[in-house]
Amino acid sequence: MRAQSNGQHPDLQAALSHLLSAGGKRVRPTVALLSAGLLDADNDRSITLAAAVELLHTATLVHDDLIDGALLRRGNPTLNAEWSPAATILTGDFIFARAAELAANTESIEVMRMFAKTLSTVVNGELTQIFKSKWLFSRENYFERIYAKTASMFELAAAAPVYLSDKDEDVCEAMRTYGYEIGMAFQIVDDILDFTSDTQELGKPVASDLRQGLITLPALNYFEDQPDAPALLALTKSVHPSDELMDRVVRAIRESGAIHKAMDEAVQFVQRGVEALSIMPPSPERQALENLATYVVDRDI
Amino acid sequence: MRAQSNGQHPDLQAALSHLLSAGGKRVRPTVALLSAGLLDADNDRSITLAAAVELLHTATLVHDDLIDGALLRRGNPTLNAEWSPAATILTGDFIFARAAELAANTESIEVMRMFAKTLSTVVNGELTQIFKSKWLFSRENYFERIYAKTASMFELAAAAPVYLSDKDEDVCEAMRTYGYEIGMAFQIVDDILDFTSDTQELGKPVASDLRQGLITLPALNYFEDQPDAPALLALTKSVHPSDELMDRVVRAIRESGAIHKAMDEAVQFVQRGVEALSIMPPSPERQALENLATYVVDRDI
Repeated sequence: MRAQSNGQHPDLQAALSHLLSAGGKRVRPTVALLSAGLLDADNDRSITLAAAVELLHTATLVHDDLIDGALLRRGNPTLNAEWSPAATILTGDFIFARAAELAANTESIEVMRMFAKTLSTVVNGELTQIFKSKWLFSRENYFERIYAKTASMFELAAAAPVYLSDKDEDVCEAMRTYGYEIGMAFQIVDDILDFTSDTQELGKPVASDLRQGLITLPALNYFEDQPDAPALLALTKSVHPSDELMDRVVRAIRESGAIHKAMDEAVQFVQRGVEALSIMPPSPERQALENLATYVVDRDI
Repeated sequence: MRAQSNGQHPDLQAALSHLLSAGGKRVRPTVALLSAGLLDADNDRSITLAAAVELLHTATLVHDDLIDGALLRRGNPTLNAEWSPAATILTGDFIFARAAELAANTESIEVMRMFAKTLSTVVNGELTQIFKSKWLFSRENYFERIYAKTASMFELAAAAPVYLSDKDEDVCEAMRTYGYEIGMAFQIVDDILDFTSDTQELGKPVASDLRQGLITLPALNYFEDQPDAPALLALTKSVHPSDELMDRVVRAIRESGAIHKAMDEAVQFVQRGVEALSIMPPSPERQALENLATYVVDRDI
């Protein structure tokens, strides 16, 4: 990943180095590498794929943070906190380009196609979010949104290695299901942590999604259980809810069973993901993917 | 190209339709299609490639116009003139994604790789321009800049069809040279028109590059011929040159031989481009590519 900025402008090298040093859990490339191991996929090309997936993810974060005006990510300053919008847009574009080059270096047209399709899905999801997902109390919309935002990239990571192996369409379908299910669980847990963590852990205000009008699973569960809750009525009546009203709503959601119920749903996604792997014979690699699925719901922030 | 937004959010469909209706000369896909004809490349996949090239170009324009704050392109409002920066960034990303999908649909890894590499080149060029190309009186920097900005995409359009044909590396090199040379000429002529056209034709102020500190070939030629010109001395001494000083410099360049000399250089690029085609037997397609090369230097705005 770091080698992708070699020979480029020093400021760009510094930016890429900053972005990659900021770390993150590297869950997506881990999924890709474990999946490649399970499927006996070509080793070098799988590593290239894993780097392509992580860079694609990084590029979308760079544009996301700019759009959201986020100043911190993982406790580190975002690129847009320190750079002009112009340089930030172009750095995101540059990382897209290098991710696409790495994807092409897998020498699989199928990988390339899946890669490009995933990028379309992610971006279309973000556009839909901007245009029509504010204050929308709909499970269907929520699940579509987190598929586009997160699960599509996990699908890519889990299923693309099939094309670097001698495995068939059935295995591809199973790995796609695994990626989909744990990706959905991963985002649900992120959305839970957005309510249960404190500001310092998050590096941003608690329930920042809700404050922007984005309804995630904890809020959906709370309001489905208590459609007459005064907080909900107040919220839907105010065009620009006050911070005080927001704090009250967030507290009510945290103290309700909505968080627990959301976590139960995440666990069900994970279970379906693990089940999908059962068409493969038991092996250390399969065990590792099962462990990773469990980690998705057990992790702290 | 239009089909790429099918099934997407209506606002996105409207945006893509607006961008494609705005027209433009479609020079790049024309190069791709004529080159494909010359090389007897696979027809369907060549059309897909041509659409990929034009969409890649369109995506870079969307981000460029946002970065430059341009409100008009080809006399039509830019996307950023009517949309939020967020929606504009994401629409650019979406068009990148669909261009990449089309490139993958050519089913050639080599096309895909060349496509991704071209995107890196274009974006790296823009980043370099932002970080270090202001008030730089260097031919080398200028030629690097217009290669990254324009000629690299013409190279892609001309040479990628080789990978959809049964032709060999020598032909690829020749087509790459053709694309490079006419791409360089195309941008030089654009830079000349930026001085010689009036504001109404351009849809932006005359010499807008120079006003932003970007030194193009007419200005380079002028100042190389007249290193002691008072206008130049005034310019290099002022951190933020006044509009009046700028108007004076622009007038001096327009009235000098610098424009003519720049056009002579463009013609030389075109001639080298036409020469590169001579390894191919004469044919109507080769003649069409030669005509297109001539059009590059003869065109009005």
